[in-house]
Amino acid sequence: VLDLGLGDRWLLFKTDAVVEGVHFTAETPAHLVGRKALARCLSDIAAMAGDPTGALVTLALPAGFDAARVEAAYTGLNQLAREFGVAIVGGETTTSPGGWLISVALLGTVARDRCVLRSGARAGDALFVTGELGGALRGKHLEFTPRLAEARWLAGHFRVHAMLDLSDGLAGDLRHLLNASGVGAELLADAIPVSRAAKLQARDHPTAHPPLTAALADGEDFELLFAVAPAEAVPLADAWRTAFPGVRLSCVGRVSAEPGLRLRDRRGIRPLAAHGYAHFQQP
Amino acid sequence: VLDLGLGDRWLLFKTDAVVEGVHFTAETPAHLVGRKALARCLSDIAAMAGDPTGALVTLALPAGFDAARVEAAYTGLNQLAREFGVAIVGGETTTSPGGWLISVALLGTVARDRCVLRSGARAGDALFVTGELGGALRGKHLEFTPRLAEARWLAGHFRVHAMLDLSDGLAGDLRHLLNASGVGAELLADAIPVSRAAKLQARDHPTAHPPLTAALADGEDFELLFAVAPAEAVPLADAWRTAFPGVRLSCVGRVSAEPGLRLRDRRGIRPLAAHGYAHFQQP
Repeated sequence: VLDLGLGDRWLLFKTDAVVEGVHFTAETPAHLVGRKALARCLSDIAAMAGDPTGALVTLALPAGFDAARVEAAYTGLNQLAREFGVAIVGGETTTSPGGWLISVALLGTVARDRCVLRSGARAGDALFVTGELGGALRGKHLEFTPRLAEARWLAGHFRVHAMLDLSDGLAGDLRHLLNASGVGAELLADAIPVSRAAKLQARDHPTAHPPLTAALADGEDFELLFAVAPAEAVPLADAWRTAFPGVRLSCVGRVSAEPGLRLRDRRGIRPLAAHGYAHFQQP
Repeated sequence: VLDLGLGDRWLLFKTDAVVEGVHFTAETPAHLVGRKALARCLSDIAAMAGDPTGALVTLALPAGFDAARVEAAYTGLNQLAREFGVAIVGGETTTSPGGWLISVALLGTVARDRCVLRSGARAGDALFVTGELGGALRGKHLEFTPRLAEARWLAGHFRVHAMLDLSDGLAGDLRHLLNASGVGAELLADAIPVSRAAKLQARDHPTAHPPLTAALADGEDFELLFAVAPAEAVPLADAWRTAFPGVRLSCVGRVSAEPGLRLRDRRGIRPLAAHGYAHFQQP
């Protein structure tokens, strides 16, 4: 978030890279690779309740790359750019030291009085998440819709105290928000919106995370997590159903003055040791 | 060059990546790798007579990277950032599909009435280059000084019609400037400032480019090439010597209405088939 003298707006500035073998494979349809490269950056602009404006695309390609695949990647990227009013204003193509790498640098702006950081959550706030969580690697990570419209609407109609987009899993990203805000939280196990993909994943692979664990720990959901004053929780949930009838919104817990992250289920309440995608231990 | 409503200024937005095995090797001192990654972007801001403001750094590293080498790279990058008043405002570290890759996204601003494009050269203009050309891979490509101060001074004191920074070699980059401006040019072989490195390179390696060819075709000089009205050429050269006594400035030729690029030497004048670094054929 930069102050470059844009009147009553801040400048938002973000880069994000997708790497073959990490964020996609050589078999991933190329238009979805290009789409994902931009969508991840858009999700970050959404997390600030901002409006994306222009992007530069850096494409690192190995020798002997497939030109048709490059064109397909740009097609997917350009299509998403048009959908969200982003101008692709330049970039470069360079040699990759291995497989494909696409890095997108994205600019956006946000009204100073609507910019939402992750550091403003207060004890008593209600915690909400959009959409459903877990199992994104089964497909959603390539086709998610950045929650730009939803975030703008939220910041325009309610006092959102803190917000971020879920890239490393609810448990890990919530911890980032809590640490930045100097507070703790209690999550309600039954309220967490477990995705169908997380359930199928657990059914198909006996060694996969149980569905709730997947919803807490899987990465790449790219949904919004935000905190609002308790008095706004019910009016917000009501207005949301009218504004975004196709997108689920769940109140998943409450911010507490007591530090740490706790999970409440039928068996009681206990600390959640989860640190997110990389370090999660099953509760 | 973007209009984001910054009063009387444009926003400048640039990304540039350096790749192990292409722009540096595993043996290159890491602080110079970091320095080069930022310096290349700064050179592009200089080419627009702009002021750099903030940068994001994307560092893609292979498994088993050397942490001390990463720290050294950031030290070199941060040192150059401080020198030129650039704030490193964020970035990310990701997995590389091969060797190191560092991509820098840089913002800058420029007063609208001082922004210099590459498309404004006019027939009759004098063509100048700063510094000396050729053989940059012997060392200068890692340690060049982006010509930010020189470019600002030029745009502040003279009507610079067109400018760019030399990354692909004088012949190739001049052709870009001429094509963008819809004009041609004649270069004077004896006026081209051949670097000592280009001469040493030709002496040490019988198969290397002759020095003049190296000055025309070698890449990574990162000097400024610019066009000014003929009436300003002499006053500019005089004032330059006072302003930048340590930096050579050479009038290397003249813009012509006739399209194409020609080289004049003692043997006469002939077309220069050079397209720059990749495609140059010895004249």
